[in-house]
Amino acid sequence: MTETQTKTIEGLVEELLESYQKGKYIDKVSTYEYPDEEVIRQILDHLKRIILQGFYKSGNYKVLTIKTPLATLIEDVTWNLSRQIAIVCKYNADCGCGSEQEISDRAMDLTLQFLKTLPRIREYVETDVEAFYEGDPAAYNKDEIIYCYPGLQAILTYRLAHELQVLGVRLIPRIMTEMAHSLTGIDIHPGAQIGKYFFIDHGTGIVVGETTRIGEHVKVYQGVTLGALSTKGGQSLKGKRRHPTIEDNVTIYSGASILGGETVIGEGAVIGGNTFITGSIPKGAKVSLKNQELAVHLPGQSEETRDLKVEFE
Amino acid sequence: MTETQTKTIEGLVEELLESYQKGKYIDKVSTYEYPDEEVIRQILDHLKRIILQGFYKSGNYKVLTIKTPLATLIEDVTWNLSRQIAIVCKYNADCGCGSEQEISDRAMDLTLQFLKTLPRIREYVETDVEAFYEGDPAAYNKDEIIYCYPGLQAILTYRLAHELQVLGVRLIPRIMTEMAHSLTGIDIHPGAQIGKYFFIDHGTGIVVGETTRIGEHVKVYQGVTLGALSTKGGQSLKGKRRHPTIEDNVTIYSGASILGGETVIGEGAVIGGNTFITGSIPKGAKVSLKNQELAVHLPGQSEETRDLKVEFE
Amino acid sequence: MTETQTKTIEGLVEELLESYQKGKYIDKVSTYEYPDEEVIRQILDHLKRIILQGFYKSGNYKVLTIKTPLATLIEDVTWNLSRQIAIVCKYNADCGCGSEQEISDRAMDLTLQFLKTLPRIREYVETDVEAFYEGDPAAYNKDEIIYCYPGLQAILTYRLAHELQVLGVRLIPRIMTEMAHSLTGIDIHPGAQIGKYFFIDHGTGIVVGETTRIGEHVKVYQGVTLGALSTKGGQSLKGKRRHPTIEDNVTIYSGASILGGETVIGEGAVIGGNTFITGSIPKGAKVSLKNQELAVHLPGQSEETRDLKVEFE
Repeated sequence: MTETQTKTIEGLVEELLESYQKGKYIDKVSTYEYPDEEVIRQILDHLKRIILQGFYKSGNYKVLTIKTPLATLIEDVTWNLSRQIAIVCKYNADCGCGSEQEISDRAMDLTLQFLKTLPRIREYVETDVEAFYEGDPAAYNKDEIIYCYPGLQAILTYRLAHELQVLGVRLIPRIMTEMAHSLTGIDIHPGAQIGKYFFIDHGTGIVVGETTRIGEHVKVYQGVTLGALSTKGGQSLKGKRRHPTIEDNVTIYSGASILGGETVIGEGAVIGGNTFITGSIPKGAKVSLKNQELAVHLPGQSEETRDLKVEFE
Repeated sequence: MTETQTKTIEGLVEELLESYQKGKYIDKVSTYEYPDEEVIRQILDHLKRIILQGFYKSGNYKVLTIKTPLATLIEDVTWNLSRQIAIVCKYNADCGCGSEQEISDRAMDLTLQFLKTLPRIREYVETDVEAFYEGDPAAYNKDEIIYCYPGLQAILTYRLAHELQVLGVRLIPRIMTEMAHSLTGIDIHPGAQIGKYFFIDHGTGIVVGETTRIGEHVKVYQGVTLGALSTKGGQSLKGKRRHPTIEDNVTIYSGASILGGETVIGEGAVIGGNTFITGSIPKGAKVSLKNQELAVHLPGQSEETRDLKVEFE
Repeated sequence: MTETQTKTIEGLVEELLESYQKGKYIDKVSTYEYPDEEVIRQILDHLKRIILQGFYKSGNYKVLTIKTPLATLIEDVTWNLSRQIAIVCKYNADCGCGSEQEISDRAMDLTLQFLKTLPRIREYVETDVEAFYEGDPAAYNKDEIIYCYPGLQAILTYRLAHELQVLGVRLIPRIMTEMAHSLTGIDIHPGAQIGKYFFIDHGTGIVVGETTRIGEHVKVYQGVTLGALSTKGGQSLKGKRRHPTIEDNVTIYSGASILGGETVIGEGAVIGGNTFITGSIPKGAKVSLKNQELAVHLPGQSEETRDLKVEFE
């Protein structure tokens, strides 16, 4: 490096140091402790192993010796998760924590409350695996679903993150569901409520917003948005119901958008692909694009308009 | 940790142990051998290096010395892939395997049959690179396509996985295409049939179903679904033709859905963006949304309805 | 391995060696130096740390000692980036470089020019964080946005890559934005122009094409395409304006497609979900699907056609 270049770099460092001192939000350096993404990734991995222990590689795994590796996983998660929860306590306005000791005790308490939900989460995940197998003719067997279906990873991660969210833990559940979003393209907010037997096929592009409520035996395909009608209100809408209610046994085909906090999709309804729905749909209704008008041009002929009739089920 | 907390954790372990013994599918622990995701990821990486050896970093690579690194890669894949195939043989009802030795021999045989297809896969991938370059004005040169186009990664992974699928190997091809799905948002089932010169642009959200048949010189953009009309039948539809046929030289623009096992998109057809197609389209037809009715509100004026004429090519 | 199997593998290696010598593009082995994906990933990581230094883990971080870690990051990026730029110089037809020394000097010069833009990028990213917080009622605080919003990762990576693109550096900016695309499902070409206060919600499936121009305070939701009308012209369209202009304060809801190089979305316009727009929209207009006709079948009743009125804001 030439002397001029060295000087340029020294100048750059000075300029950047100045740039850090202009009072911007991103100049903040007071957060001397951070939630650690890598630790949270490992916690999530261990939680998945606890849920599906039979399906993860482990040297010489036998049912008789399940106890030791399980206890190790639980202890590891207890220690790491309680530490991460303590770190994010400061983001939690309603945590009411005081001293370091109080924060630490509260974090351990929340961790243990969370771990108690694991047997129930296992019951739910069992129903999801069942729903995936029943729903997808391309599924060869249930192991294939557990080993490689992105939808199962997304719902499993959501079910874990949701229980943390319900306990009032901030940031960590969202980091977890965003990890699943990155891997699968499926964006389920940890605040959503989702019943048993949830089936996601393909999944890329699915969005399930924060205040969505979904019943049991619901099927959702790629590109479905369960979203808000408008977010013009921004932060003033915080905590308000903005996303739809989906009742039991509803099927929502690919690319459909269902928007609005007052929208209710009634029990057993079937929502056709690419529909855009901003009002409630009665129980048992089958909704489809009605005769989407397509212009069909054939070489050497004048234009023909064709109404392609869409048939469902 | 306090004594109470330690007891709580001991209680949790007991509860979870009970939860594993309720006969759920996910309680299964008998699969003492597992397909190993990390090994399969490495096999896939090595296969890509074999296909595109000139484009992967290697110390001092010269054409004269290509043989040694190539033989190393091949031997590594042979050993690891035959071992993984043996492990998944038990998932393959029609494998007809018996003893450990028979399974092992059969797995080696399948591996060698698969490896013999690599020169042909290289011919196909060459045509794909050509199609990507011709199809995308944003492509600066072919190296850019090979180094960073997600669509090329997706089609390359599919072409490898498809040959395993054709040989009747289960689970491994699907794990491979789901790895590509996770990286690219492009979900191509290894059972689909795709001809030479396949071009994918952008790619996120593309779904190509298990029984899809695609000819040569086909172009597909982001968000396109080649899917089933309904999957209400679930497992009863297994093995049935559910996805469309796309003939040669067809272009399918972003967001289009083409559904159904009897749907045929004729040679040279152009399918416009966001169309929803559930019936066959004749050869050479250009199909577009006809005058999508949009409501246009201007401040201080009454509503105007505008038919935005869509023009293609 | 049996003798027959060993011979089969030897035969495979010979066949593959032949397959490399047929003059295909992918047979190319002359690129003895490669842009190194892992090095570029590390450069990108370090650049993000420079932009958001307060939010990355570092042992005992204090504002007084910011200078040393910052200088280390800058020196590391300087060395590695200038080396990668030198490697890709050969892809850059208009670089006009000659000797190794000239290439190396030019690469260092470009690197330093790029680094000088970092304080300005920090100003822009500050406005993006602000826009994300204001735009999303589900955002608990700005730290949540910085730690886990995929949209922020995508725009931050784009802002860095764009400055390299503007300097005429090839391949590296595209590799960077494709890394963000893989992680987030958001595909922003480094050639696009994007003003301050850009807000992306959810993000999966967003495509922003190479020649797109976006003003300030623009909001974009999942599945939005800012694309070309047709790419039939392929390479002949290289460098031509193919993508739309989006003026200040425009909101584009999920699934909307806006296509064409002559399409201008006027200041303050609101583009409704799932609309397909191929012509210009005047300032302040609110555009929505007008009465998408849906067929609603209720059990035991004749079909009803329902025009679901769509209301925005």
